[in-house]
Amino acid sequence: MQIVDLTHPFDSSIPVYPGDPSPQFRVLAEIGTAGYRLGEITTVLHAGTHIDAPGHMLGSGAAVADIPVERFVGRGVLIDVRRKARIDHDVLSGVEMRPGDVVLFMSGRSGQYRKPEYFHDGPVVTEACARALVAAGVSMLGIDFASPDRPPFPVHRILLEAGVPIVENLASLERLSHHPNFEIIALPVRLAAEAAPARVIARIIP
Amino acid sequence: MQIVDLTHPFDSSIPVYPGDPSPQFRVLAEIGTAGYRLGEITTVLHAGTHIDAPGHMLGSGAAVADIPVERFVGRGVLIDVRRKARIDHDVLSGVEMRPGDVVLFMSGRSGQYRKPEYFHDGPVVTEACARALVAAGVSMLGIDFASPDRPPFPVHRILLEAGVPIVENLASLERLSHHPNFEIIALPVRLAAEAAPARVIARIIP
Repeated sequence: MQIVDLTHPFDSSIPVYPGDPSPQFRVLAEIGTAGYRLGEITTVLHAGTHIDAPGHMLGSGAAVADIPVERFVGRGVLIDVRRKARIDHDVLSGVEMRPGDVVLFMSGRSGQYRKPEYFHDGPVVTEACARALVAAGVSMLGIDFASPDRPPFPVHRILLEAGVPIVENLASLERLSHHPNFEIIALPVRLAAEAAPARVIARIIP
Repeated sequence: MQIVDLTHPFDSSIPVYPGDPSPQFRVLAEIGTAGYRLGEITTVLHAGTHIDAPGHMLGSGAAVADIPVERFVGRGVLIDVRRKARIDHDVLSGVEMRPGDVVLFMSGRSGQYRKPEYFHDGPVVTEACARALVAAGVSMLGIDFASPDRPPFPVHRILLEAGVPIVENLASLERLSHHPNFEIIALPVRLAAEAAPARVIARIIP
């Protein structure tokens, strides 16, 4: 069984969306004194590799905890969008998508994750492309960049209104390039909130 | 594909280990004003369904982010320990365990999760039992109660020194009772810390 971890490590130095506070770790008890280490974290729910639920943009949208868990597991479909500033629906032409698939847009930008430009010059998914993903019945959209769109976030809205969670800040999608068959398992913390940090893995199917 | 969610939902009212602060959710931006909802959480890393890494008890022990991801996936072995105050190594007799298996102790206590006694009258795993799990080469131990032992936590130490993470506060193990074959996928947030909240699922193998 070969597993690829598609998750960025999460520490207090990870980058956050411009304007958001950085995560803070506190140590409440240490081994030398208490016999065990006990940590606490404060973080916005959109830091690091995470999943946006419908409640992120829709007043009555589902929280992460309310999304059926089956949606977080599916056949992976990797789409190479490197060197594209605009990801239009033409990237889907010739791609076989089945209902329940997890579509991944590989921009090649995860290596820039800790650089200031990461949040500014990523590609933008078009509304037509988002509608095509919804029409195909995909289970989730995953991206190795910060956001599929810019304010006022029409692509977020199209996907979330259709109940399609968005997995942002993925890592290492390049490691899937040479594997035609793999499964994505993208598990968010079961938070009663509009987003949650997630651990995302791909399982290679030989 | 049948999936069972073994994770308690996580909100600000979940119970915490006695003395620990309760999780706090804050809303930093709301849809009506900002156009999107942005939440922040403060929580100890041992609240809800979570995974203890070696760093919880060992000064030089691995953080969650440093554990190879393969360890979080394995064949599940469910062991019924209902009505036992003490879980000794005899519960493993006749149980076929292979290296890499994820052993689950089902105490039936997850229904008491939100009751005060949950943290006080759970069963205790013996040191002999912990050593037997290590000798069998199990990948992880999962429990549907708060802790495998009490201060000074000898069972935590035996497992963590052997690199065996502990999954605490599991839910719904009873739903696995009638399935002889299933796989456990227990994915923690990739935190550079001694523990992390996790989403834990079982995939039933028909």
